[in-house]
Amino acid sequence: MTAEVGMRGIAAYVPDERHDLVADAGRYGVAPEFLERKTGFLRVARKAPDQECSDLAVAALRRLEQDEPGVLDRLGLLLVVTQNPDNYGLPHTAAVVHGKLRLPVHVAAFDVSLGCSGWVYAVSIAKSFMEANRITHGAIVTADPYSKVIDPGDRDTALLFGDAATATLLTAEAPKWRIGRFDFGTRGAEAAALEISPERVLRMNGRAVFNFAAQQVPCSIRRALDLNGIGLERISRIVLHQGSRYIVETIAERLGAGDRTPFVASDTGNAVSSSIPLVLAGSLADDAGPILVSGFGVGLSWASTVLFAEEG
Amino acid sequence: MTAEVGMRGIAAYVPDERHDLVADAGRYGVAPEFLERKTGFLRVARKAPDQECSDLAVAALRRLEQDEPGVLDRLGLLLVVTQNPDNYGLPHTAAVVHGKLRLPVHVAAFDVSLGCSGWVYAVSIAKSFMEANRITHGAIVTADPYSKVIDPGDRDTALLFGDAATATLLTAEAPKWRIGRFDFGTRGAEAAALEISPERVLRMNGRAVFNFAAQQVPCSIRRALDLNGIGLERISRIVLHQGSRYIVETIAERLGAGDRTPFVASDTGNAVSSSIPLVLAGSLADDAGPILVSGFGVGLSWASTVLFAEEG
Repeated sequence: MTAEVGMRGIAAYVPDERHDLVADAGRYGVAPEFLERKTGFLRVARKAPDQECSDLAVAALRRLEQDEPGVLDRLGLLLVVTQNPDNYGLPHTAAVVHGKLRLPVHVAAFDVSLGCSGWVYAVSIAKSFMEANRITHGAIVTADPYSKVIDPGDRDTALLFGDAATATLLTAEAPKWRIGRFDFGTRGAEAAALEISPERVLRMNGRAVFNFAAQQVPCSIRRALDLNGIGLERISRIVLHQGSRYIVETIAERLGAGDRTPFVASDTGNAVSSSIPLVLAGSLADDAGPILVSGFGVGLSWASTVLFAEEG
Repeated sequence: MTAEVGMRGIAAYVPDERHDLVADAGRYGVAPEFLERKTGFLRVARKAPDQECSDLAVAALRRLEQDEPGVLDRLGLLLVVTQNPDNYGLPHTAAVVHGKLRLPVHVAAFDVSLGCSGWVYAVSIAKSFMEANRITHGAIVTADPYSKVIDPGDRDTALLFGDAATATLLTAEAPKWRIGRFDFGTRGAEAAALEISPERVLRMNGRAVFNFAAQQVPCSIRRALDLNGIGLERISRIVLHQGSRYIVETIAERLGAGDRTPFVASDTGNAVSSSIPLVLAGSLADDAGPILVSGFGVGLSWASTVLFAEEG
């Protein structure tokens, strides 16, 4: 019988460099209060120009190795979530990272192309793949450096997105969090609301994405609670994709759970698939759970699940 | 308990247009015998200039719908394997296809970035994801139009790669083929042997890829046989990625199984992740199995498994 795979830890890498949005607010024709109250992002993290997606991924995996010495040699799966891979995505960034870290030859390595729903999706993809293939240690890396495709003059995107990477360890050996059942969905007819244009520039219809999330995510969260047989009142924390302060607060309000739904991305920006694991990385050890997580965005798509603290 | 997901059918879409390599052999400074005996590709399929990756995917899924009326409305998973997605890969092509076909909103949709090993990988990813999430119908689409990134003057690539797409139906309801256990691996340190350059042109070190495949694939096949507790003598057919006639014949010879290892891509070209399902699409119904499949290429990476005919 296959051992159940759970989550053990999350490491994060956020570049030091920041774009100070408050100082630049005038240039974008917005008031500092707009940044504080609406988007919530005062500064956004920026990778160095010569840092590639794989470099961010390597940095996150090295931090995971610091937390769990020897883990890289025990990996059987490396899954990289990105839509801004090295060069033009061929080869996949997971293979490039595999080469840079000289990982073992038996590692299964592939990229999954998803945006802000990507980490939650990847937890299901990796868990099920590992259990089916009897892999005891797997890493999910999120690294989606939007600064590669942002038009610095476009306030619909330049004031939102930050660069970061995370590495999540899934394992069948002494996991600390059990992974619940998932709700997934896609509204592909609205995919053009968030896209890289033919000129390789990110374009976003912020209103369409906001309306999608405000409508869809509370429904997905309720379905995820039902699938896991748990009521919202027993959830200790709701960790949403940190798309903006306004979308996080709107969803929290619709759920009636504003007290348990943090927005903590004001110093990094919307880090796409890294945003949920960034919130968890700093706090997983402190939480008694259960934690509800929900990612939403590019596609347009969403994914929600519940993490349960293991006994003992 | 979760119902086991197996394979039910494969549909293929190959564009009508062909580049006649025999007629153009002189221009590339190669003899027609080189095409016949070494690469094996006499003509390569070419999509229309305005056909996007998602259009090829939609065409393959419409053919799957012809074989299995109503299947698109029953899908719970759409997995697209590509490294040449629409535009710059954001949104993922699976979401674009979801929109074009107006698939149900509860469909989980994502792209997996892998090359010639991608279909075999995707069978494991989709099967395990479907079983874990109790999804009864899922489609794997392969569509990797290399003509988008081929330098027409580069004989190392222009004489090899053809455009095509396939759609594979996985289902827990009356599958025809049981899916065995898998062997995977990665040699990321050699990832640069097959890559899209910073100028967005495909470059391949053919000798490095050949040596990798000739060395690694027979070992992977033996491991896959061991994992499935079956000897090579009981395998009715070995379906290898159709990288070239020479690599298929070399691997077959090393296995001592030249009589059961077809090369049938002389009229389409190396169709990347579509090459194995293209071979199977025309012949799955005729075979009593077991069939061994092995994909290898970009990454550099490989994946092998065995398909077993269901009783009855």
